[in-house]
Parts: sequence; C-alpha cells; structure tokens
Amino acid sequence: MTPATQIYETTDVVSLYRGGRLPGLSLAWESWGKLNADRSNALLLFTGLSASAHAAASDRDNSPGWWEAIIGPGRAIDTDRYFVMCINAVGSCFGSTGPASPHPNTGQPWRLDFPEIAMEDTANAAHRLVEALGIERLAAVMGPSMGGMIALAYLKSHPHSAQRLGLISTTAASEPFALALRALQREAILTDPQFQAGQYDTDRGPDAGMRMARKLGMITYRSAEEWAERFGRRHQTQMKARPFRLRFEVEAYLETQAERFIGQFDPCAYLYLSQAMDAFDASDQDASLEAMFTRCFQGDALVLGVASDLLFPLKQQRALALAIDAGGGHAQFEAINSNKGHDAFLVDSKAFQTPIRRWLA
Amino acid sequence: MTPATQIYETTDVVSLYRGGRLPGLSLAWESWGKLNADRSNALLLFTGLSASAHAAASDRDNSPGWWEAIIGPGRAIDTDRYFVMCINAVGSCFGSTGPASPHPNTGQPWRLDFPEIAMEDTANAAHRLVEALGIERLAAVMGPSMGGMIALAYLKSHPHSAQRLGLISTTAASEPFALALRALQREAILTDPQFQAGQYDTDRGPDAGMRMARKLGMITYRSAEEWAERFGRRHQTQMKARPFRLRFEVEAYLETQAERFIGQFDPCAYLYLSQAMDAFDASDQDASLEAMFTRCFQGDALVLGVASDLLFPLKQQRALALAIDAGGGHAQFEAINSNKGHDAFLVDSKAFQTPIRRWLA
Repeated sequence: MTPATQIYETTDVVSLYRGGRLPGLSLAWESWGKLNADRSNALLLFTGLSASAHAAASDRDNSPGWWEAIIGPGRAIDTDRYFVMCINAVGSCFGSTGPASPHPNTGQPWRLDFPEIAMEDTANAAHRLVEALGIERLAAVMGPSMGGMIALAYLKSHPHSAQRLGLISTTAASEPFALALRALQREAILTDPQFQAGQYDTDRGPDAGMRMARKLGMITYRSAEEWAERFGRRHQTQMKARPFRLRFEVEAYLETQAERFIGQFDPCAYLYLSQAMDAFDASDQDASLEAMFTRCFQGDALVLGVASDLLFPLKQQRALALAIDAGGGHAQFEAINSNKGHDAFLVDSKAFQTPIRRWLA
Repeated sequence: MTPATQIYETTDVVSLYRGGRLPGLSLAWESWGKLNADRSNALLLFTGLSASAHAAASDRDNSPGWWEAIIGPGRAIDTDRYFVMCINAVGSCFGSTGPASPHPNTGQPWRLDFPEIAMEDTANAAHRLVEALGIERLAAVMGPSMGGMIALAYLKSHPHSAQRLGLISTTAASEPFALALRALQREAILTDPQFQAGQYDTDRGPDAGMRMARKLGMITYRSAEEWAERFGRRHQTQMKARPFRLRFEVEAYLETQAERFIGQFDPCAYLYLSQAMDAFDASDQDASLEAMFTRCFQGDALVLGVASDLLFPLKQQRALALAIDAGGGHAQFEAINSNKGHDAFLVDSKAFQTPIRRWLA
C-alpha cells in the first residue's frame, strides 16, 4: 500500500464466484483526475498478476507507477479528461483482501483457509465501488494481462456497464501451454518444504519455490529474441557462480529479478491469483464468446497484443476482436511491434500510447 | 542398459575438454547392420539428453528404440547399407561413464565429485571407438538435439572425419532463452532438500525437483499449438486433484510423463549433461562457425528443424546451414512441417524419413 491507496470496504458477507464466502472485503484502489458532474468520465483499470493499484504517480504518492508512461495529464490515458481508477485484485497482497490478510476471527493470515477466488470477484467488488461513487456507466473498463481478464469478467457480470473496453495482451481463456506453465509455478511453491502447507512464517517463507516460480514467470513474460540481443552468451561476473548455476548473464538477471519479487509478494496470493487466471473463461455463462459479447457489450473496444508474447499469443487477442465484432460491438485490433513479449505493455509501454490515445479520443 | 548394449572401455586416464580427468571411461553403444570390407559404411549417431543408445530394435533386443521409425532394414537410415552405431553420451546413466557410475576408489557413485564434462568428451570417446574398429572415415555423423551438438563436437575435434553431417533440431550454441530454461531445471533439482548436495539415496532422490525439471523440459519440448489441439481446457479425471494442482488434463499428462522419467534418469546425470549443453559452442576454437566448418567439414550436410521448436528455433538450423555452405560444404536445409516442437524428431519421426533417406541415398 502507498500513501495514495484508498480502501473501499464491503462489510456484508460476500458470496464469491466459485461458491465460497468472505465475511467482508477490502478493495484497494487509487485514482487520478476528477469525476465530472454527470459522472460519465470514469475509466476503470485492472492490473496484471503482480502489480498494485499504484499505476501512476500522483500528488499523494509521487513514486512512478507501473503504467507511468500511459497515465497522466495529457498522456494516452489523460487524467485531465478521465477519472482513472486502478484496482488491486481480490486475492492480491497490496491492500485488497486476500490469503495474506488477517482472518477476522484469529487475526492470523488466512493462507490456505482463504476461499477460492475468481476474476469475477474482483470485478464484482469493483462494481460495488463504482456504484457507491454514483457512476451509472463507465467511460471505459480496461486492463493488461490478468487485468484484461478482470475487465472481461466485469462486463460479463455487469452487461453494458462500460462504453469502451480495452484489452491488452490478454485472453478470454488460457490455453494448456499457459495452464501448464502456471501450474508448474504453483508446484514450485507448494513443494518447497518451507511452504509448510501454508503455515510459513511471514519473514521466512518458501523463498526457493517463489524464486523458481518468478523465474519461470519472467522467462515466459519476455522473448527469446529480446534476450538474445540483451544477454547473448555472456558470462556473468556480478554474483558468485554456484555449481551448475549462475554462469551466464541471463541467469544473474533472473536471480536478481526473482529476489526482488520474493520480498514483495505473498506466496499464497500468488497461488490463488495464478489458479484464478487458469480457471477464468469469459464465456462460461454463455454459449460462446460471441454470445457473451452480444449479451454484454456493443461499444468501442481496443484489443492490443504482441507477436512475441508466448503466454498470451496474438491469436487470442485476434479471437477476442472477432468475437466483439460478431457480438455487435466495434473492435480495433492492433499487433504492437515489440520483441518484449508479454511484458511489452510494461517495459515497452510507449509503443502502446498511440493506439490507446486514439481509442479514448 | 539393454541386452544389445556394448561397452567400449578406455582404460588409460582420460583428459576431459574442460580440464578434468577420469581414470578410465566406459562408452555404451549399440549397432545395427554390418561394417563392410573397406569400413566405409559406418554411420555414427548421437542422442538427445535423455535417451539411451537403444535407437532401434535388433535381434539382441527387440524392444522398440527411440528412433525406431528411422533406423532399420530399408528404412531412412538403412541398416542393409549402413553400419549404424548409436552412442550413449558420457555423463549419462545408460552404460556410459557418468556421475551415477561407481567411483573406482570407493565403489560409490561419483555424484558431484565427477568432473565437468562437455559434448567434446563424448565425441572424443566415440572417436576412439571408431578408430578401434579400424574406421578411417565415417560415412556420416549425425544427431538430434544434444546429439547434434555432439556430432558438431566430433567434427570440430576430428576434422574431416566424416563424409556427411546430419544435424536435426540442434544448434551450434544455445541462446539465453534456452540457457535460462535449463538453468531453472537444474535449480529445481539442486534446491530440492532431498538432493542433499548430491548425497541422496539412489532409491530416494530429489524426486520433487526432478519432477519439476522434467515438466519444464516437456513444456519446452512441445508446442502450444499441439497442446491446444490435444488437451484444450479439459479437466482431468484420471488422478486425484490437489490444492492448486492437477485440475486440467495437461497437468495430468505432465505428471505422468515426469513420474516415468524420475524412475529412469539420475539427477546428477541430468545436471551434468544439462550444463554441458549450455556450455557447448561449436566455434569456441575458431574465429567463427564458418571458420570451424572451413577447417573441419566440406561434405554433404542435412540440416533439419521445426518451426514450432521453442528451444532450438529454426533460425539456429538456418544459421548452421549457411555456415556449412560458407565453409565449403554443401548443406541441404529443410523445415519439417510439424506442430510437435522440439520433440518432433521423436514423436513425429515419420516426417523426417524422406529428407534423411534422400540425404543418405
């Protein structure tokens, strides 16, 4: 949580999408810009798996956010025009209720007693916040990666609740290649003896498992082409090599990235969100994806993808755009030219400025 | 080892490519067909990481081998014409000396006391065998995946020792994407507490680490496209699902494959061979890959690859073919049409028959 984090509390019992219940729910969010008089300029943004609601700097917190190049006065998501709300997902560990939150009865973290969560649960919590703000219809709902899944969940659970839909490097449902990679990340955490069936000490958790999970994630978030240019076969000298490990520069890079992540992200939050991404299917309540859009959305959609994305391949964004059009909406599909793979929206975010600006103009 | 395994012993001290020494060395191999009178029909075949020398059935062992569809009387590698020799790599655990072999002083497995090995060590051991058989020049040297690296090592260490060179789904040097994936497989084994710094019981080794290593391997040996067709998003029912695991069919498939592998392959053998693949660079003794071929090979080469191969991408085989041509040889490059990724040479081996037959005709 940052000084800019706001918390929206649901104090009633919350029924979850997969059948569980929570005695109440906190939703962490940040905002930029001002809601206009007729409350028609709200843009709702969801995040990728590992991000907080801090998408951009503000007066309350001037540290750069995860989408700093995109959000701000005069930027592609123009905070002079839009009231931008970014939501930390339910199940995460940056202010919203999740398995790392204290259980109300014991004060101890929920961990594996937390009920199964779904993309729809974040969507529903955000919808309650939107209603509480008196917003009848969003100007736009959008998100990259997991955030795109939640944006889809928002519309499927709350038909016609947004004028525009922005889907970036995301999918209506993961294919088995992505399922296998995420399952293996979870296995790394679950089989680390320090995981202790979820009863780990907060400051001495399953680091070895988290390290491997994050490395595997990172490997699939980037592209072979980028790494060939960036690292080649250079040996690393910045840290001590170990037997069978840390000989090449690419290994040291992953080690550093993974170490940084371990200190930030709760292992159980990772397990719950990862599983929720696997289970998500935008058309699970409809005969088809097209039927879902027919029922829920006929506005202007922007669908962006990156050809070097291994995890959310371009054909998935193409399929989304086709289904939106077939459902009566209007989708603008664009393949962003970047060798940064799935993470392009983060590390090559400038390449996303023009299409987003045009879509929101 | 199978009833058909032959062992070629080097009883002198063997100096290894990376500076280590072995007090002697066993090389496991199998053969098919007959060496002709002028000893000009020998074809030397090296294997992928996890294979034994049992590439095809024979009178001595009629169980199918790993390249059964390719090798045999009248097949693409025609054992009526060629004397085919398949070599189990040094460092492996199917008869050739490796970290799982008994240390001569203690009778206990070498494990982490085994010296670092290289692709060149298998090539050199195979060359001693070839010389012992009185073969002056091979009709062909070839191999898929790691076996292609060893075939390159053979030529680079023994210039002009083969008339033909066959390279299948292989590379002159791995790129950082492959390095990162192999390093992570090794990390899974090394961080499993049951690895015990290599002092594991033979029947109670680092199974959890090996399971993850093999799954990660399998994920990168196949393709997203194949799995989308084969598994889709179907839930599995063949084994008990566990929290956060084994919900989808693709997960059960990987679990079954990994379990099978754990019982067959020694963890230290995996570490040593995996590292040797990372370290291999066909041009490490020359100014360039072209210069290596100029120095070592001017024959007819066949270079095959598969567009869906993530780990040994097609551009690597294209680069090999270009370097062979530039070095004065003649390379026939072909992209095999298969969605089976790196494993296509094994699971779609019929697609490789025609180009191999034509090359050897």
